[in-house]
Amino acid sequence: MNNNAAPEAVLLRDDAHGVATLTLNRPAQFNALSKALLTALHTELAAIATNKSVRVVVIKGAGKAFCVGHDLKEMRAQHTKKYIQDLFRQCGEIMMALTQMPQPVIARVEGIATAAGCQLVAMCDLAIAAEQARFAVSGINVGLFCSTPAVALGRAMARKEAMEMLLTGEFIDAPEAARRGLINRAVPAERLDSEVQRLVDSICGKSPVAIAMGKRLFYQQLETGLDAAYQLAAKTMACNMMTDDAAEGIDAFMQKRTPAWKGT
Amino acid sequence: MNNNAAPEAVLLRDDAHGVATLTLNRPAQFNALSKALLTALHTELAAIATNKSVRVVVIKGAGKAFCVGHDLKEMRAQHTKKYIQDLFRQCGEIMMALTQMPQPVIARVEGIATAAGCQLVAMCDLAIAAEQARFAVSGINVGLFCSTPAVALGRAMARKEAMEMLLTGEFIDAPEAARRGLINRAVPAERLDSEVQRLVDSICGKSPVAIAMGKRLFYQQLETGLDAAYQLAAKTMACNMMTDDAAEGIDAFMQKRTPAWKGT
Amino acid sequence: MNNNAAPEAVLLRDDAHGVATLTLNRPAQFNALSKALLTALHTELAAIATNKSVRVVVIKGAGKAFCVGHDLKEMRAQHTKKYIQDLFRQCGEIMMALTQMPQPVIARVEGIATAAGCQLVAMCDLAIAAEQARFAVSGINVGLFCSTPAVALGRAMARKEAMEMLLTGEFIDAPEAARRGLINRAVPAERLDSEVQRLVDSICGKSPVAIAMGKRLFYQQLETGLDAAYQLAAKTMACNMMTDDAAEGIDAFMQKRTPAWKGT
Repeated sequence: MNNNAAPEAVLLRDDAHGVATLTLNRPAQFNALSKALLTALHTELAAIATNKSVRVVVIKGAGKAFCVGHDLKEMRAQHTKKYIQDLFRQCGEIMMALTQMPQPVIARVEGIATAAGCQLVAMCDLAIAAEQARFAVSGINVGLFCSTPAVALGRAMARKEAMEMLLTGEFIDAPEAARRGLINRAVPAERLDSEVQRLVDSICGKSPVAIAMGKRLFYQQLETGLDAAYQLAAKTMACNMMTDDAAEGIDAFMQKRTPAWKGT
Repeated sequence: MNNNAAPEAVLLRDDAHGVATLTLNRPAQFNALSKALLTALHTELAAIATNKSVRVVVIKGAGKAFCVGHDLKEMRAQHTKKYIQDLFRQCGEIMMALTQMPQPVIARVEGIATAAGCQLVAMCDLAIAAEQARFAVSGINVGLFCSTPAVALGRAMARKEAMEMLLTGEFIDAPEAARRGLINRAVPAERLDSEVQRLVDSICGKSPVAIAMGKRLFYQQLETGLDAAYQLAAKTMACNMMTDDAAEGIDAFMQKRTPAWKGT
Repeated sequence: MNNNAAPEAVLLRDDAHGVATLTLNRPAQFNALSKALLTALHTELAAIATNKSVRVVVIKGAGKAFCVGHDLKEMRAQHTKKYIQDLFRQCGEIMMALTQMPQPVIARVEGIATAAGCQLVAMCDLAIAAEQARFAVSGINVGLFCSTPAVALGRAMARKEAMEMLLTGEFIDAPEAARRGLINRAVPAERLDSEVQRLVDSICGKSPVAIAMGKRLFYQQLETGLDAAYQLAAKTMACNMMTDDAAEGIDAFMQKRTPAWKGT
C-alpha cells in the first residue's frame, strides 16, 4: 500500500531503493498513536516483513514532533478495561514486530518522542536524532506510569537512568539519549537525513539473508543464558556459512572485489 | 518509630511531608552495617512499605561516610558459618525489600560508599552523590570477594566495569559512578540536599498508586523475556488506566489544570 | 607447555610471576584464528584453569593486530556444514572457558580486533587497549553476520550500539570502546604494558581462593533473577568467610598489616 495519494492517511508509506519510509502522519496531534494509527502501523510492518524488496525501514514523524505516545483523548473517551487491554496488547505486538521482522528498522527522530513515542524509538534497531530532539516517558504526569515503555527503556539504558525518567517524567535531550544508549547518535538537524541515509546505504550494501539471520539471532540469544546463546549462535553461523551470499562474500573478499549478493 | 529522641540509635528515622529519611547512624564506625543496624533497617523498610503516608524514602549516612559495608570486626568475632549465612541472607532480604516496597528509595551519598555500602547505593531506585563521594567494593582487599555487592553492580553497570571494581577493590569517583549508571548524578556538595529535594518533590507530585504499580512492574519485567514483559506491562497499564488517579490525571491534562490525586 | 623455544608455534605461552601470557602468533595473518590456533588456545586455557601457580592470564597478539577473527581462507576451503559447526562450537567453548576458569583474563589490545577477535576482547574479564586500537564485527561485509560475536557484544554494551556495529561492520576506536564498556580503558600505546601490569599486580596481591569464588559467582548470578542471585551470593560469601584467607585478611586489616594469603 502506498499512501502518497492520500495525504490525509494517519500513516504514510513511501518505498524507494529498498527503503520503506513510514511517516506517522497526525501532525496536528503530534503524531499521537490513535487506534487507527496503531492498526495502520501494525498492518504495514506485517506487510513489509514478507516483502523481499524492502531492505530497511525508516520510521519518522510528520511535522514538529516524532510521536507523543498514545492518544489520551481517545483512550479517555473509550474508557473500558477491555478496550485498554486490547490497545496495549496491540501496542506490545507492534513493538515485538519491530524486533521480529527481518529488516532493520531505523527511527529518524525530530522534535519530541514521549511515552509510547519514546518506546517506539527504544524498540527500533537503530535511531538517529536531531540534536534538538527530546525524550521523556511522561505518563506519570497524568497518573499513568509508562509501564510498556518501561520494558523498552529498562533494556536500553542503565536501570537508574530509566527509573528517573519513569518516576519524574522529565525530558532528556538527544546527546544524553545517545550517551545512555537510547539512540545511536544526535546530529545537527540539517545532517539528520544524510546520517540516516548513511546507515540505510550501509545496510542496503549487505547480504539480506545474512542481515535477517543475524537480526533474528541477536534478539533471541539475549533472552537465554550465555552457554545456550553460544550454541544458538554457532548454529546460526553454520547456516549462514552455507548460504550462497557467504560463499560469494568470502570469495569477493579474497579476490579484493565487490560482492554480488544473490540474497540466498 | 521516630528515633529523634534517641540519638544513640544506630538508625534514625525522620518523617516529614511524605518523606521518610533513614540515617545510618554509626558515624564513628563510618556507618558499618552491624547486625543491629541491619535489623533496624530491615524493620523500618518493612514498616514504611505499608505506611501510605510515606511517598518516598531517602537513605543517608551520619558523619563523613555514607556506609563502609558490613562490620568486619563483629563478623570476625561471630565467626560461625551459620551466623554469616544468616547475616548475608538478611542483607539480601533488605536489598530485595528496597526494590519491592511501593515507594521509590533515593540514596543521598556523601563520603565513601564501600562493599555493602556501595551495594546499598546500587540497589536504591535513584541515587544522588556529592562530587567528592567515592565508591568501591573493597572486600577483595581482606580476602572476601564482594559477592553480594556483585549482584547489584553486575546489574547497574557494564560487566567489565563491575569486574574491575570487584577484582581490584579500587575506588571510582562520583562523576565516574554517574557515567557508569551506579548513581543518577554527582553534584557539588552544597547542592546535594537541593538536588535530592528536587527528586523528592517531583515524586511527591505524582499519583502514589501509579508510582507503586509502575515500580513493581519495572523490576518484575526485567526478569522475563521481552514478550512476557510486554504482556505483564500491558496488564499493568490496563489496571493503572482503571484507577481514579489516571482518570483525574488525563482529565486535568486535557483541561490544563493541576490534577488532584486521590491515591486510588 | 612453554613455547618460547618454538617461535613458529601459532600460540606462545610465557609464564612469569604468576602471570600466563598467551600470544596469538600468526602475525602475517593478523592472528586469524585458524583451527590450529583455536585448538592451541583451547588446550592452554584448560591447562591454566587447573594450574594453581597461574594467578592471572594476559592475551595479546603478535605484530600489528590483536586478532582479525576466524581464518576465512581456511573456512572457505573446508566448506562443509559439519566442519563449520564444529569450528563454531569449539569457538563457543573457548569463550565459555574464559569466563569459567578461576583466574581473571585480561585482553591487551594493540591494533585491530575484528569479528571473533573483537568477541575475544569482549569475553575477557578485563581489557586494556592502546588508543590507536580499533574494534569491529565485520563479518557482515563478507555476507556472514557476526552471530557468535553478537552474544558477547550484546552483553557488553547497549543494544543499539551492538546492533549498529553488527549491521554496518564499521569500526569504533578505543576511547569509544571504553565508553561503551567493551574495554576497561584506552591508554597511550607506550603506557599499554604498564597499565596491564598495574591490573596484574593488583590481582596477584589478592587471595586466589577469593578471586576464584568471586569470578565464578559473578557470571553465575548474572544468569538468574535478582532473588536467586542474592541467595547464591549469600552462600558464596559464607563459604568465602570460612576460608583461611578471609580470616587472615580481616585480621590483617584490623591489625593494619599486609595479609599473608595461604590460598585456602
